[in-house]
Amino acid sequence: MAARRVMVVKSGGEAAMEEWRACFAGCAPGLELRWWDDPATRPEEVDYALVWDPEPGRLAAMPGLRAVFGSGAGVDGIVADGDYPRHVPLVRMSIPAATERMGEFCCWAALSLLKEARRMAIAQAERRWDFVEPPHRASQRTVGIMGLGNMGARTAMMLRGIGFPVIGWSRGRKSVPGVESYAGPGEMGAFLARSDILICLLPATEETRGIINAATLARLPPGAGYIGVGRGMQQVLPDIVSALDEGRLSGAVLDVFEPEPLPADHPLWTHPRAIVTAHVASLPSRAERASAVAAAIAGFERGEPLPNLFDHARGY
Amino acid sequence: MAARRVMVVKSGGEAAMEEWRACFAGCAPGLELRWWDDPATRPEEVDYALVWDPEPGRLAAMPGLRAVFGSGAGVDGIVADGDYPRHVPLVRMSIPAATERMGEFCCWAALSLLKEARRMAIAQAERRWDFVEPPHRASQRTVGIMGLGNMGARTAMMLRGIGFPVIGWSRGRKSVPGVESYAGPGEMGAFLARSDILICLLPATEETRGIINAATLARLPPGAGYIGVGRGMQQVLPDIVSALDEGRLSGAVLDVFEPEPLPADHPLWTHPRAIVTAHVASLPSRAERASAVAAAIAGFERGEPLPNLFDHARGY
Ligand SMILES: NC(=O)c1ccc[n+]([C@@H]2O[C@H](COP(=O)([O-])OP(=O)(O)OC[C@H]3O[C@@H](n4cnc5c(N)ncnc54)[C@H](OP(=O)(O)O)[C@@H]3O)[C@@H](O)[C@H]2O)c1
Ligand SMILES: NC(=O)c1ccc[n+]([C@@H]2O[C@H](COP(=O)([O-])OP(=O)(O)OC[C@H]3O[C@@H](n4cnc5c(N)ncnc54)[C@H](OP(=O)(O)O)[C@@H]3O)[C@@H](O)[C@H]2O)c1
Repeated sequence: MAARRVMVVKSGGEAAMEEWRACFAGCAPGLELRWWDDPATRPEEVDYALVWDPEPGRLAAMPGLRAVFGSGAGVDGIVADGDYPRHVPLVRMSIPAATERMGEFCCWAALSLLKEARRMAIAQAERRWDFVEPPHRASQRTVGIMGLGNMGARTAMMLRGIGFPVIGWSRGRKSVPGVESYAGPGEMGAFLARSDILICLLPATEETRGIINAATLARLPPGAGYIGVGRGMQQVLPDIVSALDEGRLSGAVLDVFEPEPLPADHPLWTHPRAIVTAHVASLPSRAERASAVAAAIAGFERGEPLPNLFDHARGY
Repeated sequence: MAARRVMVVKSGGEAAMEEWRACFAGCAPGLELRWWDDPATRPEEVDYALVWDPEPGRLAAMPGLRAVFGSGAGVDGIVADGDYPRHVPLVRMSIPAATERMGEFCCWAALSLLKEARRMAIAQAERRWDFVEPPHRASQRTVGIMGLGNMGARTAMMLRGIGFPVIGWSRGRKSVPGVESYAGPGEMGAFLARSDILICLLPATEETRGIINAATLARLPPGAGYIGVGRGMQQVLPDIVSALDEGRLSGAVLDVFEPEPLPADHPLWTHPRAIVTAHVASLPSRAERASAVAAAIAGFERGEPLPNLFDHARGY
């Protein structure tokens, strides 16, 4: 018999508990799942938590907490809690399936910009046969990826398979085959100047707050495209809208916003150059998340290190 | 001085002649371009023709014609002319850039089906935050390509780079790395049964007329997607609409129709599961076509064989 441990789950709310239990049933013997707001749970009996945006102070009130699992790759919603108990390891969700999904989404978004899919969709809505001169080929548009981590590196390889030249920008220099690597603030300008399509896949940190702004966009080649799949807090949205209005950006695919959902009266919804999606670029399924968490817990309890730990010093 | 030869050009109409002349200027010395309907041209002085849909009998009336160049990969609009002078070689346009474009378009279309882009576009139009459970990953959806020729084979490789398993169907068996090849009518059923996303990239021949019909669609896995990029005459459009209505097809991306343009009152324009585009999947630019034609003429005049000849017996 596996020892009994308690994991509180907030992600998805009470309605999702039945599915979470089914997902964990096969892979985590002895792990008892409780809804985050279950009044019957005593804080001191909690071993693990699976959360996205816990109310500040709640985690700190669980004295026996052994690890916290973020329910997505970004754990900014968790560390936003100023009372987060820093001695408790915080695991960022990194699931190969989610990395694949992000790569697929970015390929779709880059091809949507290349083929002017938004213009084609508007023509369809107007029942108009929109036969136009050919746009660029993939080989003629360099994609620049900000954030060459788990997701950025995989996305780069998939884009290269379609024929896009790809460059990347990160804190440290990276070696991803065929992808020229720019590193640090000093090389950001040179990186931007070559990015015909810019993808933001950075984590949410104090350094990346507002990094996609008028000055950044002004350094892109004229008529560049932008794909926002990192976090909404990285984007100065009015600057993006202005650049689209003025045609300095020829198009954008935006999946992340601040706040979310994007308000129904926001001008981006109807912008003729913008594709708006609902933070769906890389949502792992509950089954995928459950098996990743179960595997991490099993290793941890055997004495192995937890994977993908959040680092409070670097901020992601 | 290169000898003077005359090429009549119909593609694009009189308005396009200036651009055609500029495109050929650098690469085809001595080649004089005339608009197809230029009254000053005597039929007997014409050496070459660059056309898409010549009026029947016009080519037969040019006694000195040495070769005809189709302005696209499919030359069905030319051989529809019952009086086509069969002793004159007919060259199908095959341009690496156009093959790339077709591959990019099919990747975009397959990812649009995978990510349910039509549903997302409708949500955007309604200003609705459409946060849904994750759809399949590319690795979980097999793409079946009908027609594994120039374009089909390249498209297959690009789709594989994104992670889609790919199978193909053609007249003869093919060896494209990593792509299982089905051949002939006898293996069509087995091919269809595995195609979660079906791409039609066949040429227009008597054998392929109406090949995408209710019986064909019924053999696909339930909820399959369809991408039509061959020719409109291959599709029984009402059968496709019914399959979409009933959900047997979960989605379609349609780029070719019969007739074109698709009439403004056609139900597909507003269908919630269909993306309609205007025969733009792989339109080579005039510059790309001019340099391919100029290269073929130069080789031909040096005594080399013409590339990509139309074969009247096989019908493509
Ligand atoms: N839209 C969605 O559905 C969705 C889904 C999942 C994730 N995301 C977002 O995608 C982000 C990336 O995920 P991941 O798993 O790829 O993260 P990761 O593996 O931690 O990679 C982060 C990358 O960003 C770089 N970076 C961090 N701070 C930087 C800075 N100040 N300047 C330059 N580069 C910096 C890192 O460079 P170094 O390695 O050199 O430090 C690293 O290459 C997540 O944090 C999340 O915000 C969005
Ligand atoms: N939508 C657009 O913008 C656009 C643009 C360009 C082209 N197209 C269409 O795409 C088509 C393909 O172009 P391509 O350059 O790839 O042509 P291709 O190189 O001639 O290839 C044709 C392929 O179709 C197969 N095929 C022909 N008849 C068949 C039959 N009855 N049953 C099974 N397979 C059959 C051939 O098989 P075998 O080799 O075994 O004979 C070959 O694999 C063009 O003909 C055109 O209709 C559309």
